[in-house]
Amino acid sequence: MKTIGVADTTFARFDMGHAAIDELERSGTGFRIERYTVPGVKDLPVACKKLIEERGCDIVIALGMPGPMEKDRMCAHEASTGLIRAQLMTNRHIIEVFVHADEAEGDKELAFLADRRAREHAVNVYDLLFRPESLTRRAGTGLRQGFDDEGPVIR
Amino acid sequence: MKTIGVADTTFARFDMGHAAIDELERSGTGFRIERYTVPGVKDLPVACKKLIEERGCDIVIALGMPGPMEKDRMCAHEASTGLIRAQLMTNRHIIEVFVHADEAEGDKELAFLADRRAREHAVNVYDLLFRPESLTRRAGTGLRQGFDDEGPVIR
Amino acid sequence: MKTIGVADTTFARFDMGHAAIDELERSGTGFRIERYTVPGVKDLPVACKKLIEERGCDIVIALGMPGPMEKDRMCAHEASTGLIRAQLMTNRHIIEVFVHADEAEGDKELAFLADRRAREHAVNVYDLLFRPESLTRRAGTGLRQGFDDEGPVIR
Amino acid sequence: MKTIGVADTTFARFDMGHAAIDELERSGTGFRIERYTVPGVKDLPVACKKLIEERGCDIVIALGMPGPMEKDRMCAHEASTGLIRAQLMTNRHIIEVFVHADEAEGDKELAFLADRRAREHAVNVYDLLFRPESLTRRAGTGLRQGFDDEGPVIR
Amino acid sequence: MKTIGVADTTFARFDMGHAAIDELERSGTGFRIERYTVPGVKDLPVACKKLIEERGCDIVIALGMPGPMEKDRMCAHEASTGLIRAQLMTNRHIIEVFVHADEAEGDKELAFLADRRAREHAVNVYDLLFRPESLTRRAGTGLRQGFDDEGPVIR
Repeated sequence: MKTIGVADTTFARFDMGHAAIDELERSGTGFRIERYTVPGVKDLPVACKKLIEERGCDIVIALGMPGPMEKDRMCAHEASTGLIRAQLMTNRHIIEVFVHADEAEGDKELAFLADRRAREHAVNVYDLLFRPESLTRRAGTGLRQGFDDEGPVIR
Repeated sequence: MKTIGVADTTFARFDMGHAAIDELERSGTGFRIERYTVPGVKDLPVACKKLIEERGCDIVIALGMPGPMEKDRMCAHEASTGLIRAQLMTNRHIIEVFVHADEAEGDKELAFLADRRAREHAVNVYDLLFRPESLTRRAGTGLRQGFDDEGPVIR
Repeated sequence: MKTIGVADTTFARFDMGHAAIDELERSGTGFRIERYTVPGVKDLPVACKKLIEERGCDIVIALGMPGPMEKDRMCAHEASTGLIRAQLMTNRHIIEVFVHADEAEGDKELAFLADRRAREHAVNVYDLLFRPESLTRRAGTGLRQGFDDEGPVIR
Repeated sequence: MKTIGVADTTFARFDMGHAAIDELERSGTGFRIERYTVPGVKDLPVACKKLIEERGCDIVIALGMPGPMEKDRMCAHEASTGLIRAQLMTNRHIIEVFVHADEAEGDKELAFLADRRAREHAVNVYDLLFRPESLTRRAGTGLRQGFDDEGPVIR
Repeated sequence: MKTIGVADTTFARFDMGHAAIDELERSGTGFRIERYTVPGVKDLPVACKKLIEERGCDIVIALGMPGPMEKDRMCAHEASTGLIRAQLMTNRHIIEVFVHADEAEGDKELAFLADRRAREHAVNVYDLLFRPESLTRRAGTGLRQGFDDEGPVIR
């Protein structure tokens, strides 16, 4: 039995954690879920590290929705840097799922994008944990999460 | 008995530490407070780490008010990066409460914003320490501190 | 027998991992390859560290293709910072091979550039591992990977 | 007997280390000084860490004067990030005193500013080491070093 | 007998490593040199750390020539950050000698600048290792490497 951590925020305007958990449960079995909600994206790095070190998670999905301002972009950058550092300190993957407010036009599209990206990255988490060879089969094929895939380029 | 650290600066133009302590004391009991004041936001990371490692804090709230210039924005970025690093080194939350001088119009609004954000994050600190499930209940609902909540988006 | 790690992504639009492996095998013998595919460039740092610490790699080549937007540039920066940190934590080289979507005009040139850069850096990996003195012989000669060499400047 | 480290550079155009030492000696007794001069601000982080770990300093003041160009601003950012990291690795304060060439108009004002900021931060160093409660008494009062204090804002 | 590491790149368009070694040998005796050449500036941090930890260097000079594009500036920033981190992990100085392609007008001036800066920083390396007091004597005097000294400002 593996343990998958789900870290999310009260700042996000869509319940991405719920979407990720729902998709993980559709993807297969053999795991249990630990959820940890923090105020904002800058609180995610230590939450993820605690999920790994104190609650036994084998992998974590970290979901957040940074705001649209320059200041928010910097917050997202600081959070991302921290998530990478947390991974290097634990040798565990933390899959970052951030949706930037300016990626979508209007609230409805923002909700759609957040839901879809959370779900598609949840499958990545499942694959990394249970079938990593499936990722190698798709190496260099231009996959995207949330938006449509770009596909490969050919020489 | 838990210990909550309050780290603040002489640079800030409002006594955010006092506001946070006042709000913490309104929120409940079962904790004592350790306060540590430093010159500026770049001195906060090590102050918070010392609060955790040398003065036994279970969680810390770090309050600061970066200036309005480009140089100040960089200082805030460096401080934030350090606060995240300090959290990863200690596996403890440090809730950052920064108010940027250009977020408010005029001194009076700046004081109002600093007070409200400090108080609303003080409640987050209390929740993380004593009732983390209350944060998960509000995951993805677009909460804000200082300004009004944005609320959730719907598909 | 040495072990060379090859870390790549499903996000990239060209199978740079395949190109690197093909070129390594043309360069010589005395090594085996471990391949690890992750979703995007921000997942590469921990993948490389795991290749070194859990799968015994002596050196790693990390291949990715960041997108064209400002947000993508920041992702690449965060990934690069993480790759350098991973090297410092393990005392092993991780040769970064990133191709930015805006370096090429059109899909065909992008594929050409990704292939050539992956191959030329694969030779750097081989040289660092088996004949480091060959790099010193070419110190300061303005070598490039993917595009043509710039060559040296003369006083 | 405490030990205060003074780290400075040959790049700076004013002997800020001398000013800091002079002011420290005016502030009180009970300490000895260790001075360490390096070429530029990027050499300060390890110098400060060596002052703490190899020469027994309880606190360090790090003085520098980054140049006016974009490249210099980046150097200052890298140095600041390193100074914060050094503090987190040692649990000791390193008070950064940087004067940017474009903060002053003309050489005379630059010298005045460098002298005053070095001296006012030297007092902060003394306070952190010998009377930290004096900082808490001035929390949130808008203190500045070098330029005049901004003072507090009121609701 | 001390050991001085010289780390350089094949990307640079001038053999700065050769210039540094030549100048070190003119400066005095009592040391031997370990040279390590890597492809680009982002490979320098781990090379320097290996020079210190695996080849016994007491100090390292890291020489590189980042390209002129925005992307190159970011590479230099990442490399610099890594060099500072490597110093903090080893408590050894790594003197960074970067020449940016846009600092000089034309190839001839670029070669001149690279040669002169490498040589002047080689003397700094020698001084840090064998006569650190000579740096303190010149603290705050506005020294530059490559270009002419700026000199001190006076109140």
